[in-house]
Amino acid sequence: MSTRFSVTPVDAAEIGGYDHETDVLIVGYGCAGASAALEAVEAGSDVVLLERQSGGGGSSALSGGEMYLGGGTAVQEACGFTDTAVDMEKFLLAALGPDADVDKVGLYSRESLGHYQWLVDRGVPFKPSLWDSPTWVPPTDDGLMWMGENAYPFCRIAEPAPRGHRVTSDGFGGKVLMAVLSEAVEASGVTVHTDTTALRLIIDRSDGNRIVGLVARHFNDIVTYRARRGVIITTGGFADNAELVAEHAPQLVGLGVNSDGGDDGRGIVIAQAIGAAVRHMSAGQVGISAVPGMMVRGMVVDNLGQRFINEDVYPGLIGQAALFKHGLHVWVILDEQAYEEIPVDERWGVRPHFVAETLAELEHEIGMPAGALQSTVGEYNRHAERGEDPYFHKASRWVRPLRSPFAAVDVRRGMSAPSDGGTEGGGGAAVFTIGGLHTTVDGNVLNLDGNAIPGLFAAGRATSGLHSWGYISGTSLGDGTFFGRRAGVAAAAG
Amino acid sequence: MSTRFSVTPVDAAEIGGYDHETDVLIVGYGCAGASAALEAVEAGSDVVLLERQSGGGGSSALSGGEMYLGGGTAVQEACGFTDTAVDMEKFLLAALGPDADVDKVGLYSRESLGHYQWLVDRGVPFKPSLWDSPTWVPPTDDGLMWMGENAYPFCRIAEPAPRGHRVTSDGFGGKVLMAVLSEAVEASGVTVHTDTTALRLIIDRSDGNRIVGLVARHFNDIVTYRARRGVIITTGGFADNAELVAEHAPQLVGLGVNSDGGDDGRGIVIAQAIGAAVRHMSAGQVGISAVPGMMVRGMVVDNLGQRFINEDVYPGLIGQAALFKHGLHVWVILDEQAYEEIPVDERWGVRPHFVAETLAELEHEIGMPAGALQSTVGEYNRHAERGEDPYFHKASRWVRPLRSPFAAVDVRRGMSAPSDGGTEGGGGAAVFTIGGLHTTVDGNVLNLDGNAIPGLFAAGRATSGLHSWGYISGTSLGDGTFFGRRAGVAAAAG
Repeated sequence: MSTRFSVTPVDAAEIGGYDHETDVLIVGYGCAGASAALEAVEAGSDVVLLERQSGGGGSSALSGGEMYLGGGTAVQEACGFTDTAVDMEKFLLAALGPDADVDKVGLYSRESLGHYQWLVDRGVPFKPSLWDSPTWVPPTDDGLMWMGENAYPFCRIAEPAPRGHRVTSDGFGGKVLMAVLSEAVEASGVTVHTDTTALRLIIDRSDGNRIVGLVARHFNDIVTYRARRGVIITTGGFADNAELVAEHAPQLVGLGVNSDGGDDGRGIVIAQAIGAAVRHMSAGQVGISAVPGMMVRGMVVDNLGQRFINEDVYPGLIGQAALFKHGLHVWVILDEQAYEEIPVDERWGVRPHFVAETLAELEHEIGMPAGALQSTVGEYNRHAERGEDPYFHKASRWVRPLRSPFAAVDVRRGMSAPSDGGTEGGGGAAVFTIGGLHTTVDGNVLNLDGNAIPGLFAAGRATSGLHSWGYISGTSLGDGTFFGRRAGVAAAAG
Repeated sequence: MSTRFSVTPVDAAEIGGYDHETDVLIVGYGCAGASAALEAVEAGSDVVLLERQSGGGGSSALSGGEMYLGGGTAVQEACGFTDTAVDMEKFLLAALGPDADVDKVGLYSRESLGHYQWLVDRGVPFKPSLWDSPTWVPPTDDGLMWMGENAYPFCRIAEPAPRGHRVTSDGFGGKVLMAVLSEAVEASGVTVHTDTTALRLIIDRSDGNRIVGLVARHFNDIVTYRARRGVIITTGGFADNAELVAEHAPQLVGLGVNSDGGDDGRGIVIAQAIGAAVRHMSAGQVGISAVPGMMVRGMVVDNLGQRFINEDVYPGLIGQAALFKHGLHVWVILDEQAYEEIPVDERWGVRPHFVAETLAELEHEIGMPAGALQSTVGEYNRHAERGEDPYFHKASRWVRPLRSPFAAVDVRRGMSAPSDGGTEGGGGAAVFTIGGLHTTVDGNVLNLDGNAIPGLFAAGRATSGLHSWGYISGTSLGDGTFFGRRAGVAAAAG
């Protein structure tokens, strides 16, 4: 990693005096950092919260605002759903795997009702109404949405219930969540230092290699922080660092990024430089530039006209399959009836790139082999006459034969209107990284021997959270706030 | 990583005296370690070579014995092929990417003739005759084979020439290669310590954090080594370490492993513990349990009867696509004529799991949706009548309509006879890891700042070599010997 400033730790013996001292030092003011700060203060610690940008919010504030919550929340019950922590756990293990973190998923599911209540008590709004169709973010202000719990294969693995709790907002809810948390942070007595970038950790080799502080940069000044009880890294992922992405997640190279521009992975690397372990660095969320309402009413095919997934799953799983299995060369095929049925608000301004009377014409326009779409749609329609999809098991609610005239949307060309799955110049997809520091459920960062590094904690997308390979929306704000809080408690206890 | 012995480095100041001293200490006696040892001795160094097993050879000795060489070797010329380093480089960048190591691939290609000559001079035999059909390892003793250079898309990217140089052998050639190299090592004056496992690196914090030795285990004794000029890690990959595989390459979990059983990644992790950088840890070679002669004469389909690749590429690329894109749920479909045309030696004892007069029966037997194979084979045959494959561009030499009776081979059931792509109980595939330590072309291990770690070198599958994501057979013995030699030279220079 070529960096202007070394990531190698500084020996505490070399520090003459510190510019700032606190009990708990938190690096990064997104949802994980804010949650950690609130709990650390609550536990009686002095807290300093650093943020490289000029204000708090981070990538969290730019997100859709979904939080994955369940087990029978007030929102779920008001919408007529019963739910259990056991079903939530089963779903998450299936959707976030293979090899999702069993300890984290179990705890996260069992304590989800308390997590929900903590958010509500701080003033986070969730409207008790359901958006009942696959989407990135509801075009309405509905507060509850499916994350594919009712789609194959998940509907056979766990009792389905919608668990996507979307922070009420006119549009993306992340900014509302961060406004609420920031207000609480401001009221709590936490000291916030903005425009301050983490450079290197400070290690005390005479005290069991304990992490005792941080060297940072404030504009052009180098400043030092002493943390008496602990440092918590909540700096986000590394999607903005092209070099790290190429080294660890080559399939994400060159795509758009969902972030605030500051997800450079430095928090991860400065911890690695003192021996911290990482996990699942190749994993990524893939928000493709496609409209879920179109995909589910039509079909998604690869460049050779072949379907590869049931289009009613969480659209991020379609995105992962599209990128990791088909190099993003994918198309949404639909007919006029499907297009007309999609509420205008749900179209995100996307119009088909090709329209044709026959599939032969359409496949020719796209440049697929002659017969490719005719073969796929013919086979799809033959079964759809009976409302069946024996290939991919899309729910019969969304299955009917597609009829002329037909249309095709080129996912690589992107969307005219950004969304949670939209892109900003990335060629059809916007991504972020899921892997990161290996932590315990209490936020302790583990070293390569599997032992906790004294004085070092982490949470949010700088860590490998609930996930291994799969991803469901709501699990980043979800594990960021949940495990951020736990890291704050643990650090305050020293 | 839970390990019986800590991977945390030992401070040189804590070492009272060393059990052994040498100029260059090499850890791991496979092809990379042997090549490094020969060059370090040639450069005038005392060399100690450690091996955890009771004798040298490592995973190299169990491999097929292919070495990727080109640019116009004597073997290529005797078989009537002209070749250039430029075409070799273009092919490798395409086949080993995305994001293959440009510096390493360039140097490796430009110096390939010298590399070939060094091997021949040491007595490595290559018979100048071509095996002209896709295979894991020729069933004959032919010394030259295609690695898909003549298959789409590679045939359009670089002028095709076969570059798979297979060490002459009755069967796998790795044992012959290692016998030749071991004889040279024995004659060279290198001291070999077998039954000796690396535990921790020794770091001199008073001398710029230089690596000055190693703590190892010899049966039940802890022994220390001082290396005056450098330590070279050539310990292989981490495919045998289930925990590391789950953390870094989740798609390889639970499969068979191509190794000597000792590829536990410890060499990588003890270097990470002193701040070494790694790359491409998620990448893997995937040897599926399928016969290339069957695949190329028939077709490979997923569990829904869909083709996904041209069957004339290097079979490892079919394996990667089968595992990473289709979860290994793949089938080889062929007809009686195809089966009969395959020489018996090339069948590796594999017989079809299902045979049927019609595709409707076959898809029913397999459990595919009704119409799945009929649709795919119908579309394939329609184009095959003209010798064309507009979907995947398999060479017309291998394209003809498939006719009743039909047969299907279930790749997940494995093969009755092991091969380079065979499995030993892994459910249809045997894998090894490709990622590892980030090194320069001279074998210097880089830290997280991108700077060489003084005194530490590495080569072979403990490093990220030529590759990023893709893999072609012959590039492990190839870069192991090539960059092993360079690491030996560099370490001897101190």
